[in-house]
Amino acid sequence: MTTGIRNARNVSRYLFGTGSLSNLPAILNVHRSSASHRVIIFIDHYFQTHTLSDDFNVITPADQIIYVDTTHEPTTSLMNSMRDRVLTESAELPCAIVGIGGGITMDVAKAVSNLLSNGGDAEDYQGWDLVRVPGIFKVALPTISGTGAESTRTCVMTNTASGLKLGMNSDFTVFDQIILDPDLTRTVPRDQYFFTGMDAFIHCMESLNGSYRNAIGDAYSSQTMQLCRDVFFGDDMMSDENRAKLMVASYLGGCAIATSYVGVLHPFSAALSVVLGLHHGVANCITMRAMEEFYPEGYSEFYRMAERQGVSIPEGVCRNLTDDQYERLYSATIIHEKPLTNALGEDFKDILTPWKVRELFLRI
Amino acid sequence: MTTGIRNARNVSRYLFGTGSLSNLPAILNVHRSSASHRVIIFIDHYFQTHTLSDDFNVITPADQIIYVDTTHEPTTSLMNSMRDRVLTESAELPCAIVGIGGGITMDVAKAVSNLLSNGGDAEDYQGWDLVRVPGIFKVALPTISGTGAESTRTCVMTNTASGLKLGMNSDFTVFDQIILDPDLTRTVPRDQYFFTGMDAFIHCMESLNGSYRNAIGDAYSSQTMQLCRDVFFGDDMMSDENRAKLMVASYLGGCAIATSYVGVLHPFSAALSVVLGLHHGVANCITMRAMEEFYPEGYSEFYRMAERQGVSIPEGVCRNLTDDQYERLYSATIIHEKPLTNALGEDFKDILTPWKVRELFLRI
Repeated sequence: MTTGIRNARNVSRYLFGTGSLSNLPAILNVHRSSASHRVIIFIDHYFQTHTLSDDFNVITPADQIIYVDTTHEPTTSLMNSMRDRVLTESAELPCAIVGIGGGITMDVAKAVSNLLSNGGDAEDYQGWDLVRVPGIFKVALPTISGTGAESTRTCVMTNTASGLKLGMNSDFTVFDQIILDPDLTRTVPRDQYFFTGMDAFIHCMESLNGSYRNAIGDAYSSQTMQLCRDVFFGDDMMSDENRAKLMVASYLGGCAIATSYVGVLHPFSAALSVVLGLHHGVANCITMRAMEEFYPEGYSEFYRMAERQGVSIPEGVCRNLTDDQYERLYSATIIHEKPLTNALGEDFKDILTPWKVRELFLRI
Repeated sequence: MTTGIRNARNVSRYLFGTGSLSNLPAILNVHRSSASHRVIIFIDHYFQTHTLSDDFNVITPADQIIYVDTTHEPTTSLMNSMRDRVLTESAELPCAIVGIGGGITMDVAKAVSNLLSNGGDAEDYQGWDLVRVPGIFKVALPTISGTGAESTRTCVMTNTASGLKLGMNSDFTVFDQIILDPDLTRTVPRDQYFFTGMDAFIHCMESLNGSYRNAIGDAYSSQTMQLCRDVFFGDDMMSDENRAKLMVASYLGGCAIATSYVGVLHPFSAALSVVLGLHHGVANCITMRAMEEFYPEGYSEFYRMAERQGVSIPEGVCRNLTDDQYERLYSATIIHEKPLTNALGEDFKDILTPWKVRELFLRI
């Protein structure tokens, strides 16, 4: 394991501010050409029945909109089918791909951009630096804050056949342009706003408590946590000011990921997603229930923030499971060697024995 | 004036960590080709007599090193002459330009990169978005922290003929790669380390006290100031840990500049540079002496930090000047309309009358 010295790729350009969605057409027009005028816009299916913005339909009359069903965590099949939707509609490759939504929708934009340029299927690129050439110019407009997908170099997906949950980790996966418009998070349901926002807080809490640290990762993590505290200890976490702050926290939290590792919580949370199909944000919050011994301060802050905002965290999801399920939870947790080493040292398996892990899941 | 909504261009890649200088050859080799194998390395002349790193001579045997005399603030003539040095040595355009030094040396790398691709002289590009095509691939290795030149979209220079101090503000001016190696700041003289580091602190202090703010500029500024406090209220501002932190503060302070404005202090400091030839870092610190009424908290923190580190700030540089000099100082201050409006409102000239400005300079 390294201490995080890595050549980190930044998002090329970011535009931040209320109403900045209105800059999307001009940004796309720069990339339209005689070779291709076609833009694909992936949008979370939530916006089939909710208004994204009054202006939105007006500004994209000619472009292909594809709604992304985000009911389940993303799979390689989803990525491949989204690519097929683009290819069957027209033989002309698009000049730009836009992702408007949360982590899943942004990750679809990343994956399809890579697949259209590189050929092959999503399964072929699960891993590190397997993408060979730059993807198609891609833009993200997050409509919920916390995942950091707008600034990271991966797109999460589970291999439908093998069950492997691993993204396309590549500099080519990083967005060329992001537009951070706090107006777009106005309609997020309160619980989901909290669960997803906590993804940024929790990641940074884990990083700052790990062994493998560096000054730039620490700086991003500290500022992200401070912004989360401002938001979730505030009167209304969804005020205009706080939605703007959480959008910045999400972006900076994503930057933190580039040069840091998570710890104990994310492996447990990932296991809940893989074995029980829980979404990442809520799985993190559920996992917190068992984390007091590892992160006493973060644990305390987390519950005080939830209480302050009147959000209740689901409980009991791991009671009454079968032995087989507990074993699969153990395996899916313990496989995350890097974060667990970061948090507990190389002998982490001596601490996280099968019985200890089961006991922690039972507490959840 | 806008509130800072702007499509901000990030440095494409950053590599952070002690010893990361050793990655420079590999990064350059990616850009060497049959078309051009030539790399130009601009280095602060300080390293003609001081060791940059034991490895450095070994890793760049074949490349052209040009030492940059940083005794005076940079001019358009300096930029043009540096470009000429590159062109007279060989007709082959370089595949990469490297700047190793402080703000001046990094700015030379930026300007020469733009000039080699765009033709013309430095004077032709002083302003906003006048650079037409991307410069040659450019890399920065800061050897002193605070200016933020490693992350900004400008390169400061004064027009030798007209006296105009204005940079090449352009997305093309942003570095493609920066290498932040805290080892490189080990040999900085203590006073200079403090004066230059304070550039980051002071910029952010001004931004956070202005009227035109946004959540992302605020986040970068807050974290930059916090890192500066950690460093300058620490036992030894030049410990390994603190040099790493200040390097991060400088980078993030540069990011803050992208979406924020300075205030009262920078215009006064710029006037000191233009009229009396003082370097930017020390000019900022000297100016602080007159800033208590505008920034009482920052003023207090600044002097406590200087005291803590045993650094004394020059004083009296504006006593016994001629009337003509005071008038030129007034003009060179008041010309900075955007920052002064940000700090004092549109009627800033009612507050900063010629007599008030003279009185403030006298206090310096």
